[in-house]
This record gives sequence, C-alpha cells and structure tokens, in this order.
Amino acid sequence: MALVVQKYGGSSVASADRIRRVAERIVETKKQGHDVVVVCSAMGDTTDELLDLAEQVSPAPPAREMDMLLTSGERISNALVAMAIHSLGAEARSFTGSQAGVITTSVHGKAKIIDVTPGRLREALDEGTIVLVAGFQGVSQDSKDVTTLGRGGSDTTAVALAAALEADVCEIYTDVDGIFTADPRIVSDAQKLEQVSYEEMLEMAACGSKVLMLRCVEYARRYNVPVHVRSSYTDKHGTYVYGSMEDIPLEQAILTGVAHDRSEAKVTVVGLPDEPGYAAKVFRYVAEAEINIDMVLQNISKVETGKTDITFTLPKSDGVRAVEMLSKYQGEIGFSQVLYDDHIGKVSLVGAGMKSHPGVTATFCEALAEAGINIDLISTSEIRISVLVKDTELDDAVQVLHRAFDLGGDEVAVVHAGTGR
Amino acid sequence: MALVVQKYGGSSVASADRIRRVAERIVETKKQGHDVVVVCSAMGDTTDELLDLAEQVSPAPPAREMDMLLTSGERISNALVAMAIHSLGAEARSFTGSQAGVITTSVHGKAKIIDVTPGRLREALDEGTIVLVAGFQGVSQDSKDVTTLGRGGSDTTAVALAAALEADVCEIYTDVDGIFTADPRIVSDAQKLEQVSYEEMLEMAACGSKVLMLRCVEYARRYNVPVHVRSSYTDKHGTYVYGSMEDIPLEQAILTGVAHDRSEAKVTVVGLPDEPGYAAKVFRYVAEAEINIDMVLQNISKVETGKTDITFTLPKSDGVRAVEMLSKYQGEIGFSQVLYDDHIGKVSLVGAGMKSHPGVTATFCEALAEAGINIDLISTSEIRISVLVKDTELDDAVQVLHRAFDLGGDEVAVVHAGTGR
Repeated sequence: MALVVQKYGGSSVASADRIRRVAERIVETKKQGHDVVVVCSAMGDTTDELLDLAEQVSPAPPAREMDMLLTSGERISNALVAMAIHSLGAEARSFTGSQAGVITTSVHGKAKIIDVTPGRLREALDEGTIVLVAGFQGVSQDSKDVTTLGRGGSDTTAVALAAALEADVCEIYTDVDGIFTADPRIVSDAQKLEQVSYEEMLEMAACGSKVLMLRCVEYARRYNVPVHVRSSYTDKHGTYVYGSMEDIPLEQAILTGVAHDRSEAKVTVVGLPDEPGYAAKVFRYVAEAEINIDMVLQNISKVETGKTDITFTLPKSDGVRAVEMLSKYQGEIGFSQVLYDDHIGKVSLVGAGMKSHPGVTATFCEALAEAGINIDLISTSEIRISVLVKDTELDDAVQVLHRAFDLGGDEVAVVHAGTGR
Repeated sequence: MALVVQKYGGSSVASADRIRRVAERIVETKKQGHDVVVVCSAMGDTTDELLDLAEQVSPAPPAREMDMLLTSGERISNALVAMAIHSLGAEARSFTGSQAGVITTSVHGKAKIIDVTPGRLREALDEGTIVLVAGFQGVSQDSKDVTTLGRGGSDTTAVALAAALEADVCEIYTDVDGIFTADPRIVSDAQKLEQVSYEEMLEMAACGSKVLMLRCVEYARRYNVPVHVRSSYTDKHGTYVYGSMEDIPLEQAILTGVAHDRSEAKVTVVGLPDEPGYAAKVFRYVAEAEINIDMVLQNISKVETGKTDITFTLPKSDGVRAVEMLSKYQGEIGFSQVLYDDHIGKVSLVGAGMKSHPGVTATFCEALAEAGINIDLISTSEIRISVLVKDTELDDAVQVLHRAFDLGGDEVAVVHAGTGR
C-alpha cells in the first residue's frame, strides 16, 4: 500500500462533469489500496473571474484581501470534488491550506512554504478517508492570515504535502502527456521523456518550460519527492521527475530537451566604467525595484575606453520599470545609455549529457548558423546552453536544435485540447 | 464614539457597483468617529449558484462539504468590500467566521453559536481598522470544521458579534425601510414602526415576518443588543428592535402589527383515544422525523366516542414526510385517520397592548366574520392571536385586521425593488 498525492489543475476540474471524472480516477486509486491525498486548483477560469471582480471594485486591492478572495476558488473546487467522491461511495473530506498545516511566510501573493504540519490529514487518512487539500494557499506563521503561493502554487502544495507525508509519489495531472523533448506544438516529432533528473527539470523550468514551476521542482528535489507528470485525459504513464543527475552514469547521460521562453526582454547598460563597484550599483538599483534578473553578461571592456557593457534579461512585464529606474540613477551610476529590446526569445538545450559530450556547444552554434539564425547572447551552465535570438526566429531555433541533437522520434506528439497547463 | 455593527444582505452586495456604495456608507460611518464592524452575506445569488453546482456533482452531498463550499460566498463578498473600502482611503480587513472567533455546535447546515471570542477583531479595531466578518458561518467547537448557521445566519452573526463586542447598535440593512405594521405589498397604508420590543419582534418573526429571523431576535434579546432594521437605499431611520415589553407602561402598550405566513400546512390526527400517552406518541414520532411543529390544538374529546382529534401545523416542506411517518405507525399509535391540508394561511395580530385591552379577540373574530373569512383554528399567547384561514383568503384577512385595529396611516408605504431580504 502506498501513499499517493494527486494534483489536478483548473481545466481538470472546470465543470461538474470534469469533476465527476476526476472523482472516478481518485476513487479508482483508492480502490487499489492506497492512501490518497488530492490537491485541486480552482475551477477553470474562477481565479481570473475573481481577479476581474476585484479590479472592478478597487484599482489597487490590498494583497491580504486579494489572498482572502482568491483562496475561495480552491475551497469551492475541493469541496465539490469531495462531494463527487462521496457520491461514488467513498469517504472524502476537504481542507483549506491552513487546516492542512501549510505554514508560510507573510508575503501575500507569493508566500513561500516554511513548514507543513499535516496532523489532521494524517488522522483522516488513518480513518480511511480520501483527503482533499485546497492548493495554492497556506497560513502565515506570523500574522495567521491566509496567504497564496504565486503561480504554480497548487503544484508546490502537492509536492510539499507529499514531502511532509512521505508519499510514494506525487502525481501532477495536466493536459499534456508528460514532459517532452521540446514543446510539441512547435516540434511535431517531440518525444515524451520517461524520466528526468531534478537538476535537468530545474533547468527546463528555468528556461521556459511551463509544465512544472521552478519552486515546485526545487521542493521536490530538496525532499526527494518522486513526481509523475501525466495526462488527466488518459491512463498512459507520463514523465517521472526523480533522482539526481549525479546518479546517472556518465555514459548514459543524455541530452534531455530544448526549452524556449518568449517572456523576457533584454536591457543593456552601455559604457559603464570597468572598475570595482559599478556593476554592483546597477544590480542594486534593479533589485530595489524588486525585479528578478535572469541571464547576466558582461564582456571584457574596450581597451581604448576602459568602459564595458552589461546586459541582462528580465521578465517583459518588468522591463519598463527597470529602464525607468536605471535612467533615474544614470548620473549616480555613471553609464552612457540604456538599451531595451523586448523582441527577443530565449532557446536552451538542457541535459546532463552535456558534461560528458565535448562539442555540444560547437554543434549548437553551427546548427543555428546554418539556419541563418543569429545568436545575440550565449550563457551556459554545467547542463545547459542558452542563447538569445530574435523572437521571430525562436520557433525555428527550437526545431533546428531539436533536429541537430537527434531528439525527435517516430511518433508524432499528441497535443490535447487545452492550453498545456 | 460608538461601536457600530452593520450587516448587509446579498442584494446589497450583489454587484461591484452595489459593493462600492456599501463601502461608501461604511466609510461615512467610520468618519463619524465610530468603530465599525461589518458583516456581509454572499453576493446576490452566489449561495444558490453554489448549491446548484453541488447538486450537479452529487445528489446527496455530505453536510460538512456543503459548509466548506457555501462559506466561500461570504469570504468573497467580504474581501471585495474590504478592497472597496481601501480604495476609498480607509483601512479594512476581512475575517472568516472562524478567524473572528465564532464558535458553534457541530450541526452542519444549522449550527448554533455557542460562544464568540473576538480577540482578533478587537485588536484590529484598536488599530483603527474597519473590520469585516463573513456572515452565516463559524467553526465547530468539537471538530474544528467550518459550519454554517442556517437561514438568516448573517443576521445572527451580526447580532452575536454586537453582543460580544458590546456594540452600541447592530444595524441590519435590508431593502425595506424597516418593520411595518403589515407587509406593505399587501397593505398599502402599512406604517413603519419606530420601535418594537424584543418579545413583540419574536412573535412577529415566529408568525411569518421575514425581516429578521427568530434566532437572531432571540440572541438580541438575551444580550440586550439594540437592533436597527433599516434600508440600504436611503438614509432614513428604520425600526429599532429593543427593550422588553415589560418596560412598556400598560397605558402605552399598543398593537404592533399583523403578520402572515403562507409556508405552513396542517395535519390532523383523527380519532385518537383520549387517554394519557397517546398525544405524546404522536409528537414523539413526528419529532423523530426531525420535523418542527408550530401550532398545536387539541380540543375536548367527543363524549360519545371518548376520542379526540389533534391538529398541528408544520412547514409545507415537511408535510409529506410527517404524514408518511404517522401513517407508518398508525397501528401503534391507534388513530383512525390522518388528514392533510396545505392550502392554509396563518394570520396573526401581535402587540403588547393585547394584555391590557379586553375585547381584542372579539374584535379580531368579528372583523374576519364580517369579511366572510372563515376561521379554521385559533391559537393565542399573551401578546399574539393567530388564526388559520384558507390560503386564498390570507391577503384579505391581513387587510381586514389591519383596518379593524386602525394600524394604517396617511402615508402610502414605499416598497423598493428587491424581494425584501
């Protein structure tokens, strides 16, 4: 007998009919003799509808109240799923994040899980009950207020519960069949991966893969939670995210896939004095605007001027703010100008195999060059190569790299209706 | 400076626009220098929509889950009102019933408030914050599960909070101008009452008046909470429900109003042996079916048969069940037949003045007789006369009695759009 945690996303519980189907799957799992814990997101577009209502009522709603409002969505869906399970003859009980013992920081809207104390859940499970927990939420350790966890929060809730309850697996149900070697909507012969190590999944998530959010994978890795990403439309196995790439024998290490990201923009601070402290000033000001930076590049300075340029990428939604902040302090920092480009795309090759295969970087750049795709910036890690290209060339770049590294297969990838979350 | 508790019903917060208007009124009250606590019902039809979703997902949803589901409605409306208040420049924070310290019994769907420990609310008020509390809910003392309080639960929440916080007044905002001498939709010259004692309001509520639920008035009376029933559409004063009728000098005691009730049916158990224990059996079986009985009448037995008839009234929705229960045990109880009539209406005259004015009962019956309205049953208390008539004659009966006791005034009652809740 195992303890299984299952997470169902918004489209999986979008209607009474979908809810009943999810309930059937849950009861089926229970009948196999397992303890079952389920985390559901809010139904379909509920969260967006609540956000819309909030906007109608107030231009800048306080974050605390936004969390009180939004958490209603998950409360509703989990209670309904519990009811559906009950109508199939099994016992089920739903809990809020607070009741489930999900303790978080106080940052409304993007709280982090500090601890999980699932005593009430354990009791219910021991009574043979199927347990449902509202995803995306917890309770603040300090203020005892309700908090939400930010995008992908329900996945994080599921993994955190799996860790606290020492579950045998955390199944993330979504509307794609698993994690692919590339986005199947761009690369028709993208392959479903059988297994991916935590580190590789972290890179994929950081490089734009939207199937699992970064925080969720970090949590899974820290507590060694086996995650199974699979489709809620079929019974097929999906992709297991498990294990450290350190455990993969060098000869077996492969290249995992190609990720892409359209959400970033590029800022270049031109003509910064190449002396200690100047780069630090740039990043301090950007950080004070609470902007997260992704790639950073500083090349060697120009001998004749003693000045250098620093380029970094950031979410497009923060682009204007970053430029305003830097322009405001231009005198203080001492650069000559700020350049901004939001027509970029990032494409990345990820894989533990990179470490043991020399020439990957060469093959990477050659493939893009042959396709006439210009590389703007290159940034690498031990198991990843990322480049910036023109956003109009992003899809081509993904296909070219996927082909160059022979990641495709014979089967054409199946894409289910839905937006891939 | 006073502490004011305000309750707004579903139609008062039915849309973003209505929510903003309610927020304006709340902020206005705060600006007058008072501490303000607000209880809101769910927006408009939310509760019905959630009930509908539940039905689609399960034919007989477990009561615990129904409470988890339904309480989302109040959470949403109170968070939105808090946001609207904030956008007007005032501080506001919303709380669930549980967070507000509303402790209840464990009976899901119709929990009773056991205690209110409003520590968190008190802290927030002391910080100058406007406090919002989700109505209609609390937390069970035993199981720590979320519970709902039954119909009119938000009124009860408001009064209970007012009692616990020792508020100066509990304002119940609704879409009628106050409590009238009769339903203004039936009697065009019905008068708005300035003040009504607790006991008279209890009788009015028990006799069909839907403005305030019985439990809410009982709570107000027990803790001496002044209740002000008024319209959310105007600034006019409404009706104060306050004080004991014992405190009204006999000469000043008046007749308060005429209430009516269409929701009941009548059951007659015919030919019951007129000996000790038989009536008790009838009521024991009905009670075991968890049916609440209202009026009960047993007249003297017929000399020649030694048998008697017992008649009682009950909610129409329980009628069929009661008849089935009694029929099932007919042999055991020993009556000859059960009669059922759901075409009845109950009309009642209420007023402390009844005690000191002889002839009220006579005037009552004469007025109905003159109008050709037949009285089926009569039942009285110290301050109330109730009779059953044919449901088709109910409106006439109300008008006739209202006129007979000179309760009308010169102004025609104004009825606002809305269903009077």
